[in-house]
Amino acid sequence: MATAPRVLLLNGPNLNMLGRREPEIYGRGSLADLEAACRRRAGELGLGLECRQSNHEGALVDWIQEAPGQFDGLVINPGALTHTSVALLDALQAVQLPTIEVHLSNIHRREAFRHHSYVSLAADGVIVGLGRRGYLLALEALADKLGSQVEV
Amino acid sequence: MATAPRVLLLNGPNLNMLGRREPEIYGRGSLADLEAACRRRAGELGLGLECRQSNHEGALVDWIQEAPGQFDGLVINPGALTHTSVALLDALQAVQLPTIEVHLSNIHRREAFRHHSYVSLAADGVIVGLGRRGYLLALEALADKLGSQVEV
Amino acid sequence: MATAPRVLLLNGPNLNMLGRREPEIYGRGSLADLEAACRRRAGELGLGLECRQSNHEGALVDWIQEAPGQFDGLVINPGALTHTSVALLDALQAVQLPTIEVHLSNIHRREAFRHHSYVSLAADGVIVGLGRRGYLLALEALADKLGSQVEV
Amino acid sequence: MATAPRVLLLNGPNLNMLGRREPEIYGRGSLADLEAACRRRAGELGLGLECRQSNHEGALVDWIQEAPGQFDGLVINPGALTHTSVALLDALQAVQLPTIEVHLSNIHRREAFRHHSYVSLAADGVIVGLGRRGYLLALEALADKLGSQVEV
Amino acid sequence: MATAPRVLLLNGPNLNMLGRREPEIYGRGSLADLEAACRRRAGELGLGLECRQSNHEGALVDWIQEAPGQFDGLVINPGALTHTSVALLDALQAVQLPTIEVHLSNIHRREAFRHHSYVSLAADGVIVGLGRRGYLLALEALADKLGSQVEV
Amino acid sequence: MATAPRVLLLNGPNLNMLGRREPEIYGRGSLADLEAACRRRAGELGLGLECRQSNHEGALVDWIQEAPGQFDGLVINPGALTHTSVALLDALQAVQLPTIEVHLSNIHRREAFRHHSYVSLAADGVIVGLGRRGYLLALEALADKLGSQVEV
Amino acid sequence: MATAPRVLLLNGPNLNMLGRREPEIYGRGSLADLEAACRRRAGELGLGLECRQSNHEGALVDWIQEAPGQFDGLVINPGALTHTSVALLDALQAVQLPTIEVHLSNIHRREAFRHHSYVSLAADGVIVGLGRRGYLLALEALADKLGSQVEV
Amino acid sequence: MATAPRVLLLNGPNLNMLGRREPEIYGRGSLADLEAACRRRAGELGLGLECRQSNHEGALVDWIQEAPGQFDGLVINPGALTHTSVALLDALQAVQLPTIEVHLSNIHRREAFRHHSYVSLAADGVIVGLGRRGYLLALEALADKLGSQVEV
Amino acid sequence: MATAPRVLLLNGPNLNMLGRREPEIYGRGSLADLEAACRRRAGELGLGLECRQSNHEGALVDWIQEAPGQFDGLVINPGALTHTSVALLDALQAVQLPTIEVHLSNIHRREAFRHHSYVSLAADGVIVGLGRRGYLLALEALADKLGSQVEV
Amino acid sequence: MATAPRVLLLNGPNLNMLGRREPEIYGRGSLADLEAACRRRAGELGLGLECRQSNHEGALVDWIQEAPGQFDGLVINPGALTHTSVALLDALQAVQLPTIEVHLSNIHRREAFRHHSYVSLAADGVIVGLGRRGYLLALEALADKLGSQVEV
Amino acid sequence: MATAPRVLLLNGPNLNMLGRREPEIYGRGSLADLEAACRRRAGELGLGLECRQSNHEGALVDWIQEAPGQFDGLVINPGALTHTSVALLDALQAVQLPTIEVHLSNIHRREAFRHHSYVSLAADGVIVGLGRRGYLLALEALADKLGSQVEV
Amino acid sequence: MATAPRVLLLNGPNLNMLGRREPEIYGRGSLADLEAACRRRAGELGLGLECRQSNHEGALVDWIQEAPGQFDGLVINPGALTHTSVALLDALQAVQLPTIEVHLSNIHRREAFRHHSYVSLAADGVIVGLGRRGYLLALEALADKLGSQVEV
Repeated sequence: MATAPRVLLLNGPNLNMLGRREPEIYGRGSLADLEAACRRRAGELGLGLECRQSNHEGALVDWIQEAPGQFDGLVINPGALTHTSVALLDALQAVQLPTIEVHLSNIHRREAFRHHSYVSLAADGVIVGLGRRGYLLALEALADKLGSQVEV
Repeated sequence: MATAPRVLLLNGPNLNMLGRREPEIYGRGSLADLEAACRRRAGELGLGLECRQSNHEGALVDWIQEAPGQFDGLVINPGALTHTSVALLDALQAVQLPTIEVHLSNIHRREAFRHHSYVSLAADGVIVGLGRRGYLLALEALADKLGSQVEV
Repeated sequence: MATAPRVLLLNGPNLNMLGRREPEIYGRGSLADLEAACRRRAGELGLGLECRQSNHEGALVDWIQEAPGQFDGLVINPGALTHTSVALLDALQAVQLPTIEVHLSNIHRREAFRHHSYVSLAADGVIVGLGRRGYLLALEALADKLGSQVEV
Repeated sequence: MATAPRVLLLNGPNLNMLGRREPEIYGRGSLADLEAACRRRAGELGLGLECRQSNHEGALVDWIQEAPGQFDGLVINPGALTHTSVALLDALQAVQLPTIEVHLSNIHRREAFRHHSYVSLAADGVIVGLGRRGYLLALEALADKLGSQVEV
Repeated sequence: MATAPRVLLLNGPNLNMLGRREPEIYGRGSLADLEAACRRRAGELGLGLECRQSNHEGALVDWIQEAPGQFDGLVINPGALTHTSVALLDALQAVQLPTIEVHLSNIHRREAFRHHSYVSLAADGVIVGLGRRGYLLALEALADKLGSQVEV
Repeated sequence: MATAPRVLLLNGPNLNMLGRREPEIYGRGSLADLEAACRRRAGELGLGLECRQSNHEGALVDWIQEAPGQFDGLVINPGALTHTSVALLDALQAVQLPTIEVHLSNIHRREAFRHHSYVSLAADGVIVGLGRRGYLLALEALADKLGSQVEV
Repeated sequence: MATAPRVLLLNGPNLNMLGRREPEIYGRGSLADLEAACRRRAGELGLGLECRQSNHEGALVDWIQEAPGQFDGLVINPGALTHTSVALLDALQAVQLPTIEVHLSNIHRREAFRHHSYVSLAADGVIVGLGRRGYLLALEALADKLGSQVEV
Repeated sequence: MATAPRVLLLNGPNLNMLGRREPEIYGRGSLADLEAACRRRAGELGLGLECRQSNHEGALVDWIQEAPGQFDGLVINPGALTHTSVALLDALQAVQLPTIEVHLSNIHRREAFRHHSYVSLAADGVIVGLGRRGYLLALEALADKLGSQVEV
Repeated sequence: MATAPRVLLLNGPNLNMLGRREPEIYGRGSLADLEAACRRRAGELGLGLECRQSNHEGALVDWIQEAPGQFDGLVINPGALTHTSVALLDALQAVQLPTIEVHLSNIHRREAFRHHSYVSLAADGVIVGLGRRGYLLALEALADKLGSQVEV
Repeated sequence: MATAPRVLLLNGPNLNMLGRREPEIYGRGSLADLEAACRRRAGELGLGLECRQSNHEGALVDWIQEAPGQFDGLVINPGALTHTSVALLDALQAVQLPTIEVHLSNIHRREAFRHHSYVSLAADGVIVGLGRRGYLLALEALADKLGSQVEV
Repeated sequence: MATAPRVLLLNGPNLNMLGRREPEIYGRGSLADLEAACRRRAGELGLGLECRQSNHEGALVDWIQEAPGQFDGLVINPGALTHTSVALLDALQAVQLPTIEVHLSNIHRREAFRHHSYVSLAADGVIVGLGRRGYLLALEALADKLGSQVEV
Repeated sequence: MATAPRVLLLNGPNLNMLGRREPEIYGRGSLADLEAACRRRAGELGLGLECRQSNHEGALVDWIQEAPGQFDGLVINPGALTHTSVALLDALQAVQLPTIEVHLSNIHRREAFRHHSYVSLAADGVIVGLGRRGYLLALEALADKLGSQVEV
């Protein structure tokens, strides 16, 4: 294997608030902490990782569109856009990259409008309710799909 | 009372069109006129006021996230995002600032898709159908909550 | 302006229980306290105010029908009838008086059957979730509509 | 035929407003005018007629319950209670008198919540949209059912 | 009054089966009997009457389209097409003739799919559940609208 | 135990018709007979019992509001208001007395609009379909909750 | 009375967990305790009682089918199968034994999917929200139906 | 005709991916190719044309708001925002320019959430399923409305 | 290209009323005028055109079935049958000819029952709201699909 | 057995296309082939058989109405009318002949709008998904009902 | 043909009650009688037949899973599980054997929850409402699919 | 850490078919292969693992109930019961063990009835669409929760 597969980790609206608000739900670590943990795990799995966050649907769509060529797979927590953004769905379907959707909380135990995900219609797999560890597991799953995973 | 409480007034998509279009519905004054009236009323109520408007959901989310520390309360007319934006709801729930939602028209007498508000799930109070005066009443309500109101 | 505009304040079922039950939700003051505060505020606004409460839909309809000629505007908290009474809606549409609907709590954050209001289909404006202050703001809004408001 | 069959004409909430409001919809005559016209037509049809109106669901239920023995048939325009009152339905099913439901306007062309009638589940016949003449036709239909109708 | 107003009575699918089937519901008289009774009543009311029946939606639409000029008003029992035919609705809206819709049985007490009528969206009035007499009442109502009715 | 707990038995619209109509459903005894049987059973259970019936929602709400202090528990058959009255629900939630809801017939086997009960949202327990005995069982359950029940 | 009527008490899935889990909801006694209390009450009422519990829908259906001949009535708490099992409904309709349905908690105050009961479509009566006493009341009601009840 | 009418062509999210992805659905030409073809056709029709694309709802709203004065009509393919953006609807209603909505694919044959268009509530006409030619036809229709069309 | 492709233009119920009724909606020209304009445009596009109209669903189905062999493509305005006729859908799916659906008005801005089109499930493209010009554009689109279009 | 029972086989819209289109779904034989096979099977079963097909709902209704006296039973494949025609349902209920409904394909595996059949509300039995053999089985079932079946 | 194809006939919950209950609906014969008739018909058709019944969903799933290799086709009446068991659907889809679903009664004329069948999503054909003969017809259809049918 | 935490892996209906059917969806390995891989991974994670599968809802409920004391956490793929079993939900809520729900395929991309999971209402986390690896990730997540995980 010549070069490490590269993964783009996208976090949607309000995930930049991690650690600053509602720590009883989302934990005390910041988004930077989470991204650092993801980078460590990516390194162990033989993956390159770039992390981005935006509160703007359009920015997330732009990044997904530009991903092919630069990245081999996506991990995405679309935040609130999960439930409202057909544009994210269309972008993911257009680029056809291996994609894992992650949610920190178990969205199926929250308000009814959080039970449906447009993004799940394009994602290969979905991991919900496992907190920050869900991101690490998503990286593992992606490493497996991309054939870079050293162990297992 | 040492310093005046500060309030952020947010107007969402198309509210910058005030006075330019459909004056029979929204009145003839511009958004600048409305903001000036709000600033006057805020002054009378002992509040500092900053006014912003955007057609971009992401910008509104950004501003709400940055509000704690800079502002003590929010008045928001989310415009069309009222009915579609879970991201605004999540941002408001994350910052936990006293918040009053305002709508110029009586949204309950309009199309069915305007009857539901995601923002109302996070707002303390909601004022609809009272035109520009609704903003002034929202400032009063907020002044009351923030303990700055001189009179009453 | 020769004579003060007169306003009828109507409270529907169970609002006579104010202060006696669930003070954590509705505050400790009684309905009489609320009505006294409204009368004070009405006086400041140059309005005459008469306050009535009933648990009977029919009585509320009777009072609304008799209002034209005696009153120039209405403030109404229809209580539970908000969600079930087409008769109140029809009475309000028949008399065509300026009308502000008030709710103490934010009904949009409560059970689904409290999200819809028949009365909002006839009211000019709606104020929810601002507690007893909502009534005072409603009086202000009405004073504005009736042209009696001294200040602002 | 010894004695004339007797009919009870019931009008529900807001029908006492006839002629005072929205004459372009409901005509210029008052409820008293309508009742007088009904009494005339009843006389021609060989029927005794008593007319009552109330804005109180309970009063209408009381009157329906007391009708057997005193009256041989009912004409009822339940007004807004048409769409909300299971109690009226139950009362009508309990007394089992011949009953014609009347609506001045064509309720099927109005708001969706006016399309369903609980009362129609108990009425023998329903006449809508024919204005005041609908009452006269209802009396004819009832006279026919009660065997009192002279002509035809 | 120079010439008698002319009325077209249209019966839809399966009404030609009257008297032949389910007499406990629809009575023992045939469609010819019903039409004869209607013609008698029309004569008394000073109306000309032409009666047609078809099981074909297209034929009913054709006849409605051709009515203006030949007829001054319509009485229509659309039978099963009541619940399914937007074409009948459009035809009635196109010709804009005074129209009374009639149903022999009380459709609101039957299966749910019989509760909605497309035709009611175009009809001036609707009479249901009064059996064959409903047709005679419809003629009266139409005579009244057309100004031909001698008595009343 | 110094004084007997007191229970208020409320019957809603049309329950005063018991025995006069539809005896095959509701039995032949009158409401007075039922109340007498309830008083006997209450006596055996060491309970004081007062029985009231009204066809007026407002009267039932009034009585519930006045119950605290006079009564220690409620048995209520809201009749048709079961399915339509948010006001009854609010009154019950306001007074917070132990409450058992009773229905003579099995409402779950009747029309769909009878399947939902607003009152059940506030009642401690619900007994349906057991006829008049349901009332006696409700008294037993209440006696048990109030600690007055002699036997068992 | 020659022989005592025999009653089969059936408890569905998870009711064997009584007392082991969530005692704040379901009380501290075990299922064995509940069954013992039921047997005592049955004895007082002159009823024989057999108690069975299963987590298997099929076993419950088997037992219901075998009941005729062996038992004269049923008391059933179907647990979670209440909301999902048409097979239980069909079995109860097939055997046509007097049947009382019991639920410990007030299912109408829980999640929406617990508001509907297939079993209620076949049960004579339903008792909900009265805890373990609900079973004893169900036995009383059944004793009454089976004519074995000594007292009352 | 002094100056050529000017048209703004707006493409929403993911339409910049044309030709790069899913060519079997959307054809092989790029967005630039499509815009060039539109410019050629606009020229033939005597229209000036400016083409813009964005993945950001806010940017599209901004451009629509700025259009009056600069442009005489709009052609818009809102992409995924078709189904979710009330803000686009409001912007179009505010500017009141002649507007044609275009979709490359037949959205009525795709997933259910693509069947509804908020934009259609404001557009004069809608053209779906005709691929890139749909844009050219939209320009023709607009030219016709703007009175610039040379031929036909 | 030896022979001109032939197109069948089908108009459904009530489109023969064009010009005779509601000219403010549908324009003043008759159906014959529209068909003449279509024939002119078809000639310019190198297409043969045959025009038919019927109020009978069955006739339209017959014509669609017979089209293969005689015609190379279809333009269809199904009128009211758009929303109700599965038979038209099946016929179009059976013959598999290139088909463009046209509606004069923007059906998405009219009553809810006009928003769904069965025919769109079989049509290649749909043009709505562009009045009579929509037909001409449909012919252009079809000419393009059939390879006959001279220009563009 | 004196005379053979006679059966009318009705095929609805588009079934005359059998064999000409979509043979992979409906087989290669024509409708004439299917009717011939049915006639052979009818003969073996001792039944007379007449076969008719129409794309016109009205024609099918006419034939059903005329069937009594001429025919002893019906086999009907209503095609697309299955899902839309209340008129067919009413006709079948009016004539009360033994009726078997047949569908070539398994309609429950197709689009949602094909899952409901009005005709099934009147048919004795329904056979779906068994292709042309379904017709033969329907004839057998009918022969059995009519007592003509020789074997079995 | 070397060996006879073998068919597994599965009956679900409560079908073992055949003949013991509700004979007016299901006939007087027992399940054993029905199975004997099926075996006779299978013999005539050149099929081997094994008959099983269970009230346990799991047992039915087990049997379906074990069928491949032992059996060549399935006839199944899933009883109440028809409407609730996704597990049966999955099992049938997993084994991919030719399968005919049978129901004794016409489930489309019963309660709404019986109108939907999960099993129909996997079955080749469905026969409803033809009583016990439906089973025999299902065997014929299966014989035809399996190529064993001697006659026809 | 003295003893290894023990995990119970439960597979529901039809998961014993793994590898035998539809390998393109579920892979070629058998359930035994999957369980072996899970055991290996559990060992690496310092977990004891017991694997069970059943097609019987009742058996799965039994095992969950017995788990406390024997096991410290659960991994469950409920198969088809995911969507239908309230009993599984109740059992999981009763035992309150850390629980991860796994699905091999992405259920959100399949039929609508597979989008809802009762089990998700009780599970801590949910992993879908990651095939057999999903099980391994679930074990990791559980090891993390149980504090046994060696690495990370």
